[in-house]
Amino acid sequence: MRIVVDAMGGDHAPACVVSGVVEAVKELPVEITLVGIEAQVKKELSRHSYPEGRITVLHAAEVVDMEDNPLDVIRRKKNCSIVVGVNLLKQPGYDAFVSAGNTGALVAASTFYLRMIEGVDRPGIGLVIPQVSGCAFLIDVGANPDPKPEHIYQYGQMAAVYMQSVIGVANPTVGLINIGEEAGKGSGFDKQTYQLLQEKLPNFVGNVEPNKLFVGKADCLVCTGVVGNVIIKLSEGLMEAAGTVLKRGIMKDPLAMLGGLMMKGSLKGLKKHVDYSEYGGAPLLGVNGVVMKSHGRSSPKAIKNAIRAAMREVEHKVIDRMRTAVVS
Amino acid sequence: MRIVVDAMGGDHAPACVVSGVVEAVKELPVEITLVGIEAQVKKELSRHSYPEGRITVLHAAEVVDMEDNPLDVIRRKKNCSIVVGVNLLKQPGYDAFVSAGNTGALVAASTFYLRMIEGVDRPGIGLVIPQVSGCAFLIDVGANPDPKPEHIYQYGQMAAVYMQSVIGVANPTVGLINIGEEAGKGSGFDKQTYQLLQEKLPNFVGNVEPNKLFVGKADCLVCTGVVGNVIIKLSEGLMEAAGTVLKRGIMKDPLAMLGGLMMKGSLKGLKKHVDYSEYGGAPLLGVNGVVMKSHGRSSPKAIKNAIRAAMREVEHKVIDRMRTAVVS
Repeated sequence: MRIVVDAMGGDHAPACVVSGVVEAVKELPVEITLVGIEAQVKKELSRHSYPEGRITVLHAAEVVDMEDNPLDVIRRKKNCSIVVGVNLLKQPGYDAFVSAGNTGALVAASTFYLRMIEGVDRPGIGLVIPQVSGCAFLIDVGANPDPKPEHIYQYGQMAAVYMQSVIGVANPTVGLINIGEEAGKGSGFDKQTYQLLQEKLPNFVGNVEPNKLFVGKADCLVCTGVVGNVIIKLSEGLMEAAGTVLKRGIMKDPLAMLGGLMMKGSLKGLKKHVDYSEYGGAPLLGVNGVVMKSHGRSSPKAIKNAIRAAMREVEHKVIDRMRTAVVS
Repeated sequence: MRIVVDAMGGDHAPACVVSGVVEAVKELPVEITLVGIEAQVKKELSRHSYPEGRITVLHAAEVVDMEDNPLDVIRRKKNCSIVVGVNLLKQPGYDAFVSAGNTGALVAASTFYLRMIEGVDRPGIGLVIPQVSGCAFLIDVGANPDPKPEHIYQYGQMAAVYMQSVIGVANPTVGLINIGEEAGKGSGFDKQTYQLLQEKLPNFVGNVEPNKLFVGKADCLVCTGVVGNVIIKLSEGLMEAAGTVLKRGIMKDPLAMLGGLMMKGSLKGLKKHVDYSEYGGAPLLGVNGVVMKSHGRSSPKAIKNAIRAAMREVEHKVIDRMRTAVVS
């Protein structure tokens, strides 16, 4: 299997990406094509030892900044690593694309060059999120801030395929994230979406309130890109703030400081449990190809996990299954 | 000062509410009118000792359920504690209304009977939320799931009045909660709202991403009722889930269990820091009267804190200040 990786994406590219790719080829049965500014990428690669021949470099002269407008990237930066990487998926022998770069540009380039799966109107970014027991699939976490109810319906279908084929959950249920549990709660959009899911999605289990998001109410959790993005960013911010407040409290109390040391493993376990990077990248679903978004702050480990997640999607033929499963 | 309290609101009414009211009159310079089914309320009161004459009971024959449709309440349950309580504010001698009952019914009754402050189109529910240092005012947390950009602009103005007069922050800044930091990010609604705030609100400081919600980026944080409600409910759910996962980890490890005991104070401090009930109720802003929503799961302490928060609003003449400050 050959995975294409955007060497120039993320806050610490290309160093972090290259380290992650090296970890990946050492641990996983995979070959990697790194796309980016060749001289920079090769320089980073020279710092590592790894099975030669498992990593190849493809030159892409341009780099996408986090501030670049997605449509401008497609129009004017055709030699950037995202556009070059996405286009490789149209050639035989390239199975998936992983990028920690500009999300909007990745979504736009994937949509424009790979085209949508029949029956899907707009791509969505999903994320496997931890539950108190097991995990759930949350979609959309930011690709589509202005969805129509039909898009949410399509996300529900794709999420179910993902949970069934990649995670191995039989007959996954789908819940709509909403600010009330009963039908008829929420915004006009939420009410319309509830109605549509109720009519057309056999495994729909109703609304899930955000305070019940981690207790296994549904295998798939669907929402607008705004709500999903608020969820993942707030979770990140809240855990960080809680850590800061806890540390500050501990520092005032020597006994608590010692207690903190004794609990270090448990606190790390908690961090690991809630840290999305542990679960690998965020799949962009709906396009004709396996595309995986990795967090902009991705560590080498997160890059490796995103590659692993992309491999699983390829192995389980998720795109083919979606083509069959999604109905309008 | 006399505060009207809905005796029948919340999961454990009237027992919990009555306990909270008794705590309040013992600690605070306040007189309370408890509105609800007289026999039940007096029975609960008889379990407590408190300064007689500081609590009076006003009979309201009907009770609003959490499932009741807000408009039906106004049309058909005119003798319920929420409608009776709200209407008392139109008489002299009653300064504020506190309820832990059905949010929609409270919003609808307050809007219908008290009418809006001039220049405000829709009420919003605000909440003082903890920051790593200090606090911020978040609005709307669920009164208005389908706002127009103008409503968000009005929330920004009212929030600034609240932060300045009640919390004592000079020249409070206002940030728009959005899924990207730069202008031009988010949904169509978000972009329009950004534009309007940028034009009309002198203290507008731009977008605040949800991962930066607790680090003091702005004194006032404005958003739609959907986003605000997701924020408070997700925070609750995430802290609960984190607690469960942490406890489970600790239980497997005797050393960590001991460490947990030694850290108990710090962990409680953290809980106290993030627990919204510590901060009192959530003010319903925009109507001609001080109305305070308390959490449906409110403890006696939360009821007492909501009463205290209502008193502060009255003391600082927040409604009068809003009438002067809000401009269209």
